[in-house]
Amino acid sequence: MIQIQQERLKTVTENMKRQRLPQILVTSTASVYYLTGLWIEPMERLLVLYIRDDGTCALFGNELFSLTPGGSVPLYLHTDADDPLRDLVKVVRPGVLGIDKSWPSCHLLSLMCQRSDITPKVGSAPVDAARMRKDAQEIAALRSASRINDEVMQASLAAVRAGATEKELAAYVEHQFALHGADRSTEGMIVSFGANGANPHHSPDNTLVRRGNSMVFDIYIPINRYWCDMTRTAFFQEADEESRKVYETVRQANLAAEAMIRPGIKMSDIDKTARRLITEAGYGPYFTHRLGHGLGIDCHEPPDNSAVNETVTQPGMVFSVEPGIYLPGRLGVRIEDLVLVTESGCEVLNHYTKDLQILP
Amino acid sequence: MIQIQQERLKTVTENMKRQRLPQILVTSTASVYYLTGLWIEPMERLLVLYIRDDGTCALFGNELFSLTPGGSVPLYLHTDADDPLRDLVKVVRPGVLGIDKSWPSCHLLSLMCQRSDITPKVGSAPVDAARMRKDAQEIAALRSASRINDEVMQASLAAVRAGATEKELAAYVEHQFALHGADRSTEGMIVSFGANGANPHHSPDNTLVRRGNSMVFDIYIPINRYWCDMTRTAFFQEADEESRKVYETVRQANLAAEAMIRPGIKMSDIDKTARRLITEAGYGPYFTHRLGHGLGIDCHEPPDNSAVNETVTQPGMVFSVEPGIYLPGRLGVRIEDLVLVTESGCEVLNHYTKDLQILP
Repeated sequence: MIQIQQERLKTVTENMKRQRLPQILVTSTASVYYLTGLWIEPMERLLVLYIRDDGTCALFGNELFSLTPGGSVPLYLHTDADDPLRDLVKVVRPGVLGIDKSWPSCHLLSLMCQRSDITPKVGSAPVDAARMRKDAQEIAALRSASRINDEVMQASLAAVRAGATEKELAAYVEHQFALHGADRSTEGMIVSFGANGANPHHSPDNTLVRRGNSMVFDIYIPINRYWCDMTRTAFFQEADEESRKVYETVRQANLAAEAMIRPGIKMSDIDKTARRLITEAGYGPYFTHRLGHGLGIDCHEPPDNSAVNETVTQPGMVFSVEPGIYLPGRLGVRIEDLVLVTESGCEVLNHYTKDLQILP
Repeated sequence: MIQIQQERLKTVTENMKRQRLPQILVTSTASVYYLTGLWIEPMERLLVLYIRDDGTCALFGNELFSLTPGGSVPLYLHTDADDPLRDLVKVVRPGVLGIDKSWPSCHLLSLMCQRSDITPKVGSAPVDAARMRKDAQEIAALRSASRINDEVMQASLAAVRAGATEKELAAYVEHQFALHGADRSTEGMIVSFGANGANPHHSPDNTLVRRGNSMVFDIYIPINRYWCDMTRTAFFQEADEESRKVYETVRQANLAAEAMIRPGIKMSDIDKTARRLITEAGYGPYFTHRLGHGLGIDCHEPPDNSAVNETVTQPGMVFSVEPGIYLPGRLGVRIEDLVLVTESGCEVLNHYTKDLQILP
C-alpha cells in the first residue's frame, strides 16, 4: 500500500516548477521515506519514486522489497531476473529529467542507453529544499530523539569512572541508546579523552581516562528514523586554568550563536558570530571545522551551518551549533546542540546542562 | 601514503584489457579498500581511484578523508569549497571510461557535462572479477572471521533460556561479536522463533521462545573488513516429527551441495542439487530463495549461488550455502555455511555442528 504524503508532495512539485524540472527520479532511502513513509534500503537493486510536476507519481522497486500494491500510486515490481528499468523506460517522458544525486551510475547509464531522448540533470533540489523545512510530524520526532539524547548523555557521564576507556564508555552510550529504542547505525559515538580530543573525529580506543583530561562525548544516532546529535565536554577530577578558559570560550560561542538564531538571517552569520568570539579569545586557528550541519532523516543534510552558506533561515529548519577548540597534544572541547528555527526565534532541542562539569 | 596492492592491480588491468576498458573509475568503498588498503566512506563527497590499463593510477579525494600523499600513486585533494571533479576532468582521457556501478549520479553528470569527449560505460567488472577470487591474505581474514562466528554461535545458543525474546538474543549475539572485535554494522542478526522463522528475513522482535519452537540464528558481521555469515537452527525443549523431517531435509541439502563443490562446476548446479533434495522431500515450494551469495569485503558480492548463475567455480571463490524450508505459520529451518573453493574441492569455513540440537 503506497501512500504519498500529499502536503510534502505539493511542496516538492512547486519546487520542481520553480526549478524547471518537469519530472524527477527520487531514489535515496531518506527521500523516498520522506514522501511515502516506506523505509527501503535498495543496496544494489533499483528503487525509484518517479514524480511529475503535476503531482503524478509511480513507484518502481524489486519484489524483494515486500511492497504491497494499492493506494493512489501505481507500483511497478521487477525481479532479480528482469531488467530493473524495464517499466521505468516506458514511463519517463522525453526532455529534462531530474536525477537524484546519489542514484547509482549503473542505473543512469542504462537509462541513457535506452532513452536517448531524455536529458538527465542533477535533480535532488526539489525534495532537498522541502526536507529542509521540517513539518510538525518531523519536529515531534526530532524533539523526541533529542530528549532521549539528553537522558543518554546524563547516564553516560554518570558512568565515567577511574580506569574507564573510551571504548568502554562508547559501548555504554550505544547500549543506552539501544535501551531507548534507537535505530541501528554504523555511525558511531565519539568519546575522546585529553589529547585525543584534539582530533574532532577521533575514534574511541583503549585510552584510559586520566586526572585533568577533557572528555568529549559526541553522541548521535537515528531514533524512529530521525537523528539526534549532541556534544558535551566534561573534565575528569580537575580542570586547569587553560582548560577552564577554553571551555568558557566554547560555551560563550555556543550561547551567542544560539541567541541570534531566528528567521531571516544568513546561515553564514551564525558561523561568523561563534568564530569571532573564539578568535577574540585567541583560539581562532584551533576552531577547524564549520559551526554545524542540518539534519533530519539524514545525519548531514541542508542547511549547512557554515561561513560559506548564504541560505537565509526559515522556520522549520533544524541544524547543529557545535563550536569547538582543539589544542594539538593537549585537549579538545566541543559543545553541540540541535536547534529548531521557530516563527520568532529558535528552540534548542537539547536540555542537558552546558555548565562546566568536573567529574569525580 | 597511498600504496597499491600490485598483484591485485595486475589482475584488474588484465581484466580491463580483456573487457576493452582502457580506463576506469573505482569508487566503491570496498573496491578502493581492496586495491589500496584505505577504508574511506565518502558519503556525499568524491572518492575516485582512477586506473589505466597500463597500470597508471591516481587517487582523488576530499581533504577531510585524512589521506597522506606519498607512495607510488599521485593524490589529488579537494576541499568542500572546490569543484570535486576539478582535477579528475584534467586527467581522464577521451574515449571509453568505465564507471563504478555505484558511483553517485551527481558526479557522473558533472563529469559528462565537463568532458563531452568521454564515453561512460558501466565498468565495475574488472575489479569485481578480481575480487571474486580471494587471495591468501583475504582467505586468512575470511577464515578468521568464520572462526569467531563459530564461537559466537556456540555462546549464543548456550544463552537461550525460557523467557528469552528474539531481541534479547539478537542483542546477546551482537555483544558477543563486539567482544570479539567485530566491525560495526547496521546489517543485523536474524533470530526468529517458530512461525516467525517462516519469513527468511524476519527482524528480531519481542516474541518469547516457546516449547517446540524452531530457533533460526542467522548471524553475520564484518570483522577486520571481511564478512562472516552462518545460520544454525535449533529447537527449544522438543521437536515434533515434522520439525525433525524438515531439519534433516535441510541438513542433507546443505551437505550434498557442499560435497559437490570443487573447481570447474557451474554455480547453478550447486543450487539445483540442494533444491532437488528439498523438492523430493515434498518441500520444494517452501525453499523460496537462492542457495547463497558470494561475500568478502561486501556482504553480497559475486558469485551468486543461484539457479541462474552459469559462472564456473574457480579456486579462491567464497560463497554461502544456505538451503532453507519455510512453512508459513509453522516454522523455518535454515542451515548456512561459508565455503571456499580450493584447488581440489572446497573448505567449509564454519565448524559449528549441524547435528539436530534440542536445547533444554
